[in-house]
Amino acid sequence: MRLLGIDIGGTKLAVSLGNEQGVIERRLRRPIEASGKPEADVVRIAEDVRKLLRDAGVAREDVAASGVSAPGPVDVERGSRGDPPDLPGWGTVPLVRLLSEALGRPVALENDANAAALAEWRFGAGRGRRNVVYLTMSTGIGGGLILDGRLFRGHHSSAGEIGHIPLEEAGARCACGLRGCFEAYAGGAAWTRRLRELAPESSRVVELAGGRSLVTPEHVVTAAHAGDVFALAELDRWCDIVARGITVLAFTLAPERVILGTIAVAAGEELCFAPLRERVRERVWPILGDGLEIVPAALGDGGADLAGICAALEALEPSSDLAKR
Amino acid sequence: MRLLGIDIGGTKLAVSLGNEQGVIERRLRRPIEASGKPEADVVRIAEDVRKLLRDAGVAREDVAASGVSAPGPVDVERGSRGDPPDLPGWGTVPLVRLLSEALGRPVALENDANAAALAEWRFGAGRGRRNVVYLTMSTGIGGGLILDGRLFRGHHSSAGEIGHIPLEEAGARCACGLRGCFEAYAGGAAWTRRLRELAPESSRVVELAGGRSLVTPEHVVTAAHAGDVFALAELDRWCDIVARGITVLAFTLAPERVILGTIAVAAGEELCFAPLRERVRERVWPILGDGLEIVPAALGDGGADLAGICAALEALEPSSDLAKR
Repeated sequence: MRLLGIDIGGTKLAVSLGNEQGVIERRLRRPIEASGKPEADVVRIAEDVRKLLRDAGVAREDVAASGVSAPGPVDVERGSRGDPPDLPGWGTVPLVRLLSEALGRPVALENDANAAALAEWRFGAGRGRRNVVYLTMSTGIGGGLILDGRLFRGHHSSAGEIGHIPLEEAGARCACGLRGCFEAYAGGAAWTRRLRELAPESSRVVELAGGRSLVTPEHVVTAAHAGDVFALAELDRWCDIVARGITVLAFTLAPERVILGTIAVAAGEELCFAPLRERVRERVWPILGDGLEIVPAALGDGGADLAGICAALEALEPSSDLAKR
Repeated sequence: MRLLGIDIGGTKLAVSLGNEQGVIERRLRRPIEASGKPEADVVRIAEDVRKLLRDAGVAREDVAASGVSAPGPVDVERGSRGDPPDLPGWGTVPLVRLLSEALGRPVALENDANAAALAEWRFGAGRGRRNVVYLTMSTGIGGGLILDGRLFRGHHSSAGEIGHIPLEEAGARCACGLRGCFEAYAGGAAWTRRLRELAPESSRVVELAGGRSLVTPEHVVTAAHAGDVFALAELDRWCDIVARGITVLAFTLAPERVILGTIAVAAGEELCFAPLRERVRERVWPILGDGLEIVPAALGDGGADLAGICAALEALEPSSDLAKR
């Protein structure tokens, strides 16, 4: 069965042709920039899709389902989206309608964190588990919830906004406008801002970045692996905050597996997952901690392909009741 | 169809005979005290059940299913329980086996907050909703989650421990041993301790209670309705903390309805629900706040009967996949 996936990232577009086993037959990648004319951007995406099909020698009638994974807010029921922070102006684009028209076929829309969670659950680090939470741990902290073996979207498809759980009353200002959000402390963008203020000029972090104003969490991870004191302290602090976020999830949802993406994957077992597990365990009851596995995402860069494919698959063979209605 | 419900509360036992429509045919209530010999306590409960059936003129063969709603921790899969704070020693009692043997029929076990959530969802304030969170707001803060129209139990039936979401890092000591739990600020027991330390001797609260050492949240509610300044300030503070707890739930689960029991029901619309809605709205995104209804539990004292009946019903016509296995 051929499936078409379109993953609209903050900076990258991934169009993929694959199947329900998660095997990718052909892919296309390109940088994505908001042109300020979202409708034109969508027309260009549709052209990319047609090109991919042409190159693969596949007729669009041979594609069983197409799915789009796009940055939230996304309303799966209503097929519309709010304004994503990375793609201003896109909030008003009827993405599903435009793409469906351009492709001459229905297209299913999924929030990117949900699609990535589905991908990790079907093909990656969440395989065979019933209750899985996936956290992107990227620029922001998106979340996708697999509960009782189904994607859980919540009312108006708004569940899983784990990055905006408040950790501090009247805390740090978040990009979303609220205060004290998990993401305002542990999201990549917030961390980057912090690092550019605090990183000592003499640190390995600044040296690696080639200047304090260029420092990112990736430099912290690299420097920490090399034993840099500032980097180790920063990662330690980050793990502590991430442990607090996971603690909230444990008491609320009792997942059996929490999968962490991007920054956590880069930081790895010794600097991230081992201390994280220990700190979560200190903060939750044994019945919750004993059953909880905290693991890195497994799909890496291929996750973008599978996220789009999973959005398509969800429309065809829905894991959730909502999609069945 | 006849159903038998047994609700084991911290202080009260309710045994009820009813049907799948939530109509109660006959009930029995008595205080419950831990005798220190849990097996003897269970034998006595079995006697109460037999008496109820005898008085109703119903043979036990005519009961389609029996359910027990009991204070957590409860493991529905394994049928065993940990030690509930109110009933020390009961952690070791094979409640389901003892009751099943005594009644000569299988008995289904459900965590009391889950059973109460099912009752409000099937017969009370959550009727017809797909995504409902119920919070007991009693001595502690128990939670039950109805997600996508099913009870969600989580791994090892441990989900919904909303009372132990951490609100403050290194915060107030909770009865559970951890720090900063929601319940350590807004649970009835914690609030009672606070009131007995802080209530001014001259306040209406102390006058109503007949002494500072006797003050409870109920006195605060009564005094607040009468305009007492201390009581109003205390309720205001309580609403603020409850709003913080609900905010976490909104970002995580995007429920369409949050149902609050006991203390919130007593406080009512003007002193509790109206300010609470406003404060949650200030703390969440419009897409989450607009779809979120915060309402009082509807079942009152009859909730205990229906909780037991729902535990039985869940075994017979499970809302969840887990129970279907």
